[in-house]
Amino acid sequence: MALFGTIEGGGTKFVCAIGRTPDDLRDVVTFPTTTPDETLRMTISFFSEQDPLDAIGIAMFGPLDLDRSSATYGSVRATPKPGWSRVDVVSPVSEAFGVPVGFDTDVNGAALGEGRWGAGRGLETFLYVTIGTGIGGGGVIAGDSIHGLVHPEIGHLRIPRHPEDSFPGACPFHGDCLEGLAAGPAIAARWGRSATDLGPDSDRAIEFEAFALGQAMANLVLTVSPERIILGGGVMKIPGLLDATRQQMLASLGGYVDASIFADGAVDFLVAPELGDRSGIAGGLVLAERASSGLNR
Amino acid sequence: MALFGTIEGGGTKFVCAIGRTPDDLRDVVTFPTTTPDETLRMTISFFSEQDPLDAIGIAMFGPLDLDRSSATYGSVRATPKPGWSRVDVVSPVSEAFGVPVGFDTDVNGAALGEGRWGAGRGLETFLYVTIGTGIGGGGVIAGDSIHGLVHPEIGHLRIPRHPEDSFPGACPFHGDCLEGLAAGPAIAARWGRSATDLGPDSDRAIEFEAFALGQAMANLVLTVSPERIILGGGVMKIPGLLDATRQQMLASLGGYVDASIFADGAVDFLVAPELGDRSGIAGGLVLAERASSGLNR
Repeated sequence: MALFGTIEGGGTKFVCAIGRTPDDLRDVVTFPTTTPDETLRMTISFFSEQDPLDAIGIAMFGPLDLDRSSATYGSVRATPKPGWSRVDVVSPVSEAFGVPVGFDTDVNGAALGEGRWGAGRGLETFLYVTIGTGIGGGGVIAGDSIHGLVHPEIGHLRIPRHPEDSFPGACPFHGDCLEGLAAGPAIAARWGRSATDLGPDSDRAIEFEAFALGQAMANLVLTVSPERIILGGGVMKIPGLLDATRQQMLASLGGYVDASIFADGAVDFLVAPELGDRSGIAGGLVLAERASSGLNR
Repeated sequence: MALFGTIEGGGTKFVCAIGRTPDDLRDVVTFPTTTPDETLRMTISFFSEQDPLDAIGIAMFGPLDLDRSSATYGSVRATPKPGWSRVDVVSPVSEAFGVPVGFDTDVNGAALGEGRWGAGRGLETFLYVTIGTGIGGGGVIAGDSIHGLVHPEIGHLRIPRHPEDSFPGACPFHGDCLEGLAAGPAIAARWGRSATDLGPDSDRAIEFEAFALGQAMANLVLTVSPERIILGGGVMKIPGLLDATRQQMLASLGGYVDASIFADGAVDFLVAPELGDRSGIAGGLVLAERASSGLNR
């Protein structure tokens, strides 16, 4: 029976594990994402102590170079994350263990994990969007992960403003793009409290947040026509936010899309991850399995 | 040598032709889109007078039922176009000639035509967006036409407003969505003249139009990561508009996407159709050829 290593490389923390499915993980470690040297050293050290692996999958924060014909395939592209621009992630892992290494974005990885074991099971076309410290999206279209010019970012979509919302936005590139209005740091900057501290008394904050997310979800429906959108990340744990986002999405679509899947307030269309916080680590297992089969995207 | 029929079924006019490539069309007719009965009767009458065909492809205005497991596959879904909701388009053609019939949206068809003979040649992931009486988009992702829950609409994307633009928008569903701000009827309603009458003295109109289109193009880049976007339709014939849209798209992206394909002001990224007005009719040929090979999407 094959044994895989999986790496969920996030901007805040790295999670590494060994196993075959998200339910049979033998060992799991979590450590903060510091410098590339230190972080990759700890990663390699963890796997070195394990039984021999058949393949390793890496679901990594981006943007990434995923073009296998590129000289810099397997590396992080220009990123605001200090020290991580142009860092080759695949080669050190590949050279340390001499096994196939699968590589994709954290969000495409999470989509793959949910597609195999979670809320994306049986679907041909679906998206996974995470709303946390940043906003990012990935997904599967007609059974294949989305890879184009760069990869779907989704985080920086340009959306209309809530008419009563004058917050200038927190994105250093765009100000009031989706991430600038709705990611965790934007919530903290606007309301003076973190997303986890918002609750039932935070009607206005939840309304603005759901409005921004609802516009973005409507645009995704009108662009990619997914069968389902899975919304993960820490911000989505705000009580009431998922349902408020469903309502704003439907309001934004304005009855234009005639689809039974939007019945019952879209409860089966816009959903939480079934794997909870394990979507990404599960995705790394799928990437490892694919790499061991000679599939690299 | 196989001989194909091709139908470009637009909301304003139907074009029917016979051939194998857009350069060897034997016969072409164009007639206005009136009632479904009359329009389909004229279509069938045209092909009846031709040599026997191996297959027919239909690139049709939507929304369409493209789900082959659906009882109403091959029909138009709910549409504001009077009389056309729930009309079965494929069956009458299929029954009249007893040959395989390919069927897709007009914009996916145009994308297929450009992909075979035009601006999409050699690309795995690209979009075709038409800006005319309405706005619609289709495309190819990783070599396959996009088909999801419904199909990509793109026309009704929600976008930010130009800060100095107070036009309420002309979309009956959404007011100021992309189509409500930037399609032909919106231009006519806002400026009192049709898009074809805008010219070098229409700086403000072109600025607002390019702003709206630029936001939408940026969102498509950030969602689908296409290698190229082909912009067709009558509105795009306004002198200077394509280049102004490139500039607004790059401004909206704000340097966030690090891609060599945006070099030289994105002249190779955001392009006009190479087949001019023949993209759709060419797409019908590709759909016919696919149908004759037993491929239906």
